[in-house]
Amino acid sequence: MGKVINIPPQSGTAFLLNKGELLKVSCPLGEQVADMTAHNALDKMEFLSNGKTLDFEETLRLTQGSKLYSNQSNPMLEIVEDTCGLHDFLLAPCCKQTMKHFYNIDGECPTCADNLQNALEKYNIERALIPTAFNIFMNVQIAEDMTISVQKPIAKPGDFVVFKACMDLIIGLTACSAGASNGYSFKNIEYSIDKVTAGV
Amino acid sequence: MGKVINIPPQSGTAFLLNKGELLKVSCPLGEQVADMTAHNALDKMEFLSNGKTLDFEETLRLTQGSKLYSNQSNPMLEIVEDTCGLHDFLLAPCCKQTMKHFYNIDGECPTCADNLQNALEKYNIERALIPTAFNIFMNVQIAEDMTISVQKPIAKPGDFVVFKACMDLIIGLTACSAGASNGYSFKNIEYSIDKVTAGV
Repeated sequence: MGKVINIPPQSGTAFLLNKGELLKVSCPLGEQVADMTAHNALDKMEFLSNGKTLDFEETLRLTQGSKLYSNQSNPMLEIVEDTCGLHDFLLAPCCKQTMKHFYNIDGECPTCADNLQNALEKYNIERALIPTAFNIFMNVQIAEDMTISVQKPIAKPGDFVVFKACMDLIIGLTACSAGASNGYSFKNIEYSIDKVTAGV
Repeated sequence: MGKVINIPPQSGTAFLLNKGELLKVSCPLGEQVADMTAHNALDKMEFLSNGKTLDFEETLRLTQGSKLYSNQSNPMLEIVEDTCGLHDFLLAPCCKQTMKHFYNIDGECPTCADNLQNALEKYNIERALIPTAFNIFMNVQIAEDMTISVQKPIAKPGDFVVFKACMDLIIGLTACSAGASNGYSFKNIEYSIDKVTAGV
């Protein structure tokens, strides 16, 4: 893998990931969620779709072997390695209204939605085109009555997921800012990119 | 309620629904899904979001009392009456790739994605801005291992849902074209609109 880059707590970044390249996202301290978005680098109107992915993969438990699909029904990313096995693709990135709704925070505070928007601005991706993210390490439980609860991630220190890009992508990636998602402690996220040297 | 309008099997339509108006969607023959989308009539970049809705409502079982939220975290529609109680907000509208993936159909065939696109064209809403629909009467079951299965709707003949518009909306609505969603028989959907005469 390439150089390890740090995403400080409650912040976000964006970068290009070329077709065939591998993206490793890790959770050095454990129990920390990373919201990930993807847009087709050649057509920003094509982006990650939880609806298409859940339809085609027929499971809420997306892990090694699963593909993440776009709103145009194309595979964008494939999970090729996953030491954690528990992620979420139901819930939208936390935003100011989330902070008000769940935490009664009225003022300024970091959110994944704002961090993604700020990071994706350099690629001219506007807020409305930021989809529901793939929430790496997020522990969302569905009860028997179908109620949804956000619980502390099961990710241990050093757990990681490796994604392979199925097309040229613009990736947005955060260290999530919502307390309940991270066991009420905000930690960093690390990532690295590696080119596949054979067989692509 | 206003005049009852028929949506023939495997087709779709689009119309305006003003703030405070009620939309009744019914299933005259039972066991038929209707995919519904919503865009803010004054800002087409604001549209229905399953991620925001599932986050704020904290359940997969959206029924009477539930609100459907936009990608900008605003309530778009409220379910004010529901005789069925079982709908889906996980799976994207069926499209050509769905027909290939699940039914091995290669050629032309009606799909909700195409029907929504054609119907929403008159409002200048492009394909990429058509979100995962709220799938009225769709019976999507989550097994204990979190696998997803599409089953025959439990909706009986005459079952209906009434939605109240929380803002001026452009609604897209189909009689769904995917076999598995409708018990392998394609039926019509009916809708009517009524103004609220007091208390709005």
